[in-house]
Amino acid sequence: MGTAELCVSRSRKYIICCFFCLTLFSISECTGLVDAVTERKAEESHRQDSTKVLIFTLLLTLTILTIWLFKHRRFRFLHETGLAMIYGLLVGVILRFGVHVPPDVSNDTLTCVGKSRPSSLVLNVSGHLYEYALRGEVEGDPHSQDLPNADMLRKATFDPEVFFNILLPPIIFHAGYSLKRRHFFRNLGAILTYAFVGTVISSFVIGLVMYGCVALMKVIGQLDGEFFFTDCLFFGAIISATDPVTVLAIFNELKVDVDLYALMFGESVLNDAVAIVLSSSVVAYQPSGDSVQVLDGRAMLTSLGVFLAVLSGSFALGSATGVLTALVTKFTRLRDFPLLETALFFLMSWSTFLLAEACNITGVVAVLFCGITQAHYTYNNLSAESKSRTKELFELLNFLAENFIFSYMGLTLFSFQKHVFNPVFITGALLAILLGRAANIYPLSFLLNLGRTNPISHCFQHVMMFSGLRGAMTFALSIRDTATYARRMMFSSTLLIVFFTVFVFGGGTTPMLSFLKIRVGVEEEEEEEEATVTVSDGTAGRDGRHDTAWLFRMWYTFDHKYVKPLLTHSGPPLTSTLPACCTPLARCLTTQAYEDSDSELILNHSPSMLYSDLSASTDTLRDPSAQE
Amino acid sequence: MGTAELCVSRSRKYIICCFFCLTLFSISECTGLVDAVTERKAEESHRQDSTKVLIFTLLLTLTILTIWLFKHRRFRFLHETGLAMIYGLLVGVILRFGVHVPPDVSNDTLTCVGKSRPSSLVLNVSGHLYEYALRGEVEGDPHSQDLPNADMLRKATFDPEVFFNILLPPIIFHAGYSLKRRHFFRNLGAILTYAFVGTVISSFVIGLVMYGCVALMKVIGQLDGEFFFTDCLFFGAIISATDPVTVLAIFNELKVDVDLYALMFGESVLNDAVAIVLSSSVVAYQPSGDSVQVLDGRAMLTSLGVFLAVLSGSFALGSATGVLTALVTKFTRLRDFPLLETALFFLMSWSTFLLAEACNITGVVAVLFCGITQAHYTYNNLSAESKSRTKELFELLNFLAENFIFSYMGLTLFSFQKHVFNPVFITGALLAILLGRAANIYPLSFLLNLGRTNPISHCFQHVMMFSGLRGAMTFALSIRDTATYARRMMFSSTLLIVFFTVFVFGGGTTPMLSFLKIRVGVEEEEEEEEATVTVSDGTAGRDGRHDTAWLFRMWYTFDHKYVKPLLTHSGPPLTSTLPACCTPLARCLTTQAYEDSDSELILNHSPSMLYSDLSASTDTLRDPSAQE
Repeated sequence: MGTAELCVSRSRKYIICCFFCLTLFSISECTGLVDAVTERKAEESHRQDSTKVLIFTLLLTLTILTIWLFKHRRFRFLHETGLAMIYGLLVGVILRFGVHVPPDVSNDTLTCVGKSRPSSLVLNVSGHLYEYALRGEVEGDPHSQDLPNADMLRKATFDPEVFFNILLPPIIFHAGYSLKRRHFFRNLGAILTYAFVGTVISSFVIGLVMYGCVALMKVIGQLDGEFFFTDCLFFGAIISATDPVTVLAIFNELKVDVDLYALMFGESVLNDAVAIVLSSSVVAYQPSGDSVQVLDGRAMLTSLGVFLAVLSGSFALGSATGVLTALVTKFTRLRDFPLLETALFFLMSWSTFLLAEACNITGVVAVLFCGITQAHYTYNNLSAESKSRTKELFELLNFLAENFIFSYMGLTLFSFQKHVFNPVFITGALLAILLGRAANIYPLSFLLNLGRTNPISHCFQHVMMFSGLRGAMTFALSIRDTATYARRMMFSSTLLIVFFTVFVFGGGTTPMLSFLKIRVGVEEEEEEEEATVTVSDGTAGRDGRHDTAWLFRMWYTFDHKYVKPLLTHSGPPLTSTLPACCTPLARCLTTQAYEDSDSELILNHSPSMLYSDLSASTDTLRDPSAQE
Repeated sequence: MGTAELCVSRSRKYIICCFFCLTLFSISECTGLVDAVTERKAEESHRQDSTKVLIFTLLLTLTILTIWLFKHRRFRFLHETGLAMIYGLLVGVILRFGVHVPPDVSNDTLTCVGKSRPSSLVLNVSGHLYEYALRGEVEGDPHSQDLPNADMLRKATFDPEVFFNILLPPIIFHAGYSLKRRHFFRNLGAILTYAFVGTVISSFVIGLVMYGCVALMKVIGQLDGEFFFTDCLFFGAIISATDPVTVLAIFNELKVDVDLYALMFGESVLNDAVAIVLSSSVVAYQPSGDSVQVLDGRAMLTSLGVFLAVLSGSFALGSATGVLTALVTKFTRLRDFPLLETALFFLMSWSTFLLAEACNITGVVAVLFCGITQAHYTYNNLSAESKSRTKELFELLNFLAENFIFSYMGLTLFSFQKHVFNPVFITGALLAILLGRAANIYPLSFLLNLGRTNPISHCFQHVMMFSGLRGAMTFALSIRDTATYARRMMFSSTLLIVFFTVFVFGGGTTPMLSFLKIRVGVEEEEEEEEATVTVSDGTAGRDGRHDTAWLFRMWYTFDHKYVKPLLTHSGPPLTSTLPACCTPLARCLTTQAYEDSDSELILNHSPSMLYSDLSASTDTLRDPSAQE
């Protein structure tokens, strides 16, 4: 410290003209000792980073042990994510109120003053250049440097981009990869309606309700900052992403009706994609100056354009890499080396994310479609060992990432330092999400039931209404930007809503199911057999049960006859499905595949099988989730 | 750009007094547009990062496909790591000579001038604070800002700490976890001698030879900077870490003699630990001012202290967390939930690394001992599914990390911009590593053979001599610090040595084995049976074959009778091994374990079994590698 104070006396002026025109004074004597000091400081910072991650690792370990205890004692009211959240909360409380850091810790940082926020900074230390990467905004008054505890709490937080680039991709990919495809495709129409139309409706309803709420707050003088209409829409978009984790874990354990499961799961998975894209469209709508509260036709068109472009771009990219992986695994004998195969599968799926980010499309959405494609095509080409390896790998990654996010959520309730808790806003938001969910489920179910031969019962609708928990995706979207007052208020309210829905709705799932007399204990095998029986009567039997529309049936037949045989080792060989003129091509595309595939797979499929027959049998044979 | 130029005209002075006393000028008008620009820049930077990782992902994918082709065609001269290196080289060449970046890319960075290199920087942009984290030193002249290609190449490099904190831990843990324990423990004496005594000898021999070489270079005027004796010792330490990957892959494929395999594997695994600790001891020896070339008795003692403290600390920490994991998995019924079990295993192993780093011990070394302990104890408690899950998980992580490092090595040969290639130094280094390796293997083998009943044959010695490839660890240690001229010369030479040994020694392994008439095609099962037969004659039979010393036998008996039954579900129950007075304690520690364990395991062990008998049968039952 003494050295540093001595240093102040002498100073030399450097002027470095770079693009951002920052001019700086600097002092450049007394090298030796300071270098040793900074070396020590850098070590100290690494040590702190390690400790930070260690805290979370231990938190997760504790969560795992408690989950085990709960599972062991068959205690179902609190899901592991809720538990992770509670432990996170406890650590947050301890960090906030229990730990007092001696004030010299804040000396760790060097403060610069700049004009703008570049992505990287270069520091010139007597000729040596050191690069610094942007970590994110720091909370706290720039003029009060004596807040060591605040500094410590700040250090317990992660860069929000960590969620989007590290934690969410495996969660979303796993969701796509573990879709129970048979039930998913049976209810595709309903799922797409809920996920696309429903989420958009829900976003707008929530946005409008919140706009009313904000107007009310303005009137009663509860609003301390600006809150535009676009902010309300943004809030509607991020809070509309429902999280399947808690409810589906309970559904799985209780073996709830598979169609209800498929509806819930399919909706909440696609939901996330729609919410991400919607919220980024709203952001794209904003930059037209400060007059954001005025509705602007052209900007809305831009938003719609962004929405459609990002969604279709992600879909195209995700399926393209999925198809590529399928082709690679089909036309090589990689299946002889499961390690190589698994590594390739992992790398190709990860590339999807990176490629999407490099192309400025949303990686998380692309990864979802990639996961579905991989499950639908590539999975059939993998060796038995790779099938279980990939499933287990993504299951583990998903488990770790999810619990990490939830425990971080708990922590952040106390460690985030710019919370804006407003009772009016929070009550309004809770009301709005219920209204938004209702406006999604009930009208759409009514419309869907007009076309469905087996309607979605009222009980199912109530379950869907109350199972709309909010989780990881909503949190990640809301923590991404907490720069303005409006965003901070949203973030704090989002946190509380996640807590509320996870504990109240999540904890209430089991009682609700028994209150609504939903059939539980439905064995998958039983269902399976039932389906096969229905199917063997011909296509009519299936149509009588499910809403497989004409267009969709067309696609399914096409997929089964041409796409699956082209990309995988399943289904009838191309030589029998393609017209005679294409036989040479078909033979060239088929030969190797059918050499590779187990002969029993071919024997099971007579080339003249009916669509319904085929879809049922292939699914039974190769559904990743059916093997559980 | 125009806006920025306008900004220069007006400026306001901020003075922020922080510990490092940096005084800065700054300009703080015109906010709106600049913010949008920086937003765009931040996005651009994220896009570039994604592209960077994408390049490596695609490189690895390409490597995997080529490896498959090689394996498919049974082409054995080039190992996958060599291949990864070649592809990395190609990309490096393309980046260096093929890509030309338009000059405005360098505008991305804001340049500050500072007095020292803190771990984090805070940038003040009109009241908002943004935190920046240290990424590492940047190459290039601070005064020439117009080198866009250099900037691009710089961006293709990773922070060296990535190797130590992300890539090496899984590699080293996997090495520990996949040790073929039976053969490892049989040859423990020899392995420890080669790894500890041998590596120290090798480091000093190389250090001395290099000191001579540097002296020669000074005489003939080839040295452009300072190169101290400690630098030579440091070089000796880092280059003494041999890499098992390439050679052992070939050994595995050809089914070389298991004892030779165990010697090579055990040595190169422990080797790495010794090299890390030795090199950090040499660094600890340095900071005593500038007079580093003078031998200083006290500093040497400090170094020795550091060496012993770090090594024993890492050992204690690694085994402690391993033992803790064993206890947790033993006394809970986590095995009913393989996902939880695997997650716990992963988190506990990772905690070892983090804890070690938080305690300022070397995490990589702690992780190695943790891996060995997990394999020896915890593995026995895991459910069958978790056994395969953990093995497969770490196998995959190891594969990805290793190939990443090797392809990065290839890339860095062209992308690193401050290479110092000196033919004299490189030739000297090549000579030195051969001499160092010879000084390790031949004298120690001679000494070991004095005590061994089955001596290490001359052929084995020659194989060990020429199989000392250099790989990931040497590279990671040498890239960690490239600040001085000496370190840069070491780094460049290390790279070339890795290339040379991987291609020449690695490619020459198969011809060498056949030239030396080493027995190949030894089936593991065959060996196994042979061992069991030998063992059933009693302890003498085993002693006749292997150098199991008295002290070691004592430990083995103790481990088998008390430690294993305490920590795992294997071996005789504690109730039968502990003296009668401890029966209540023994019962309390045993009951649950033996309830949990499969009854066949207990039935196989009559409590009065001989040491040798037991060790053979438990190994056969539960050796992680024996199940391959």
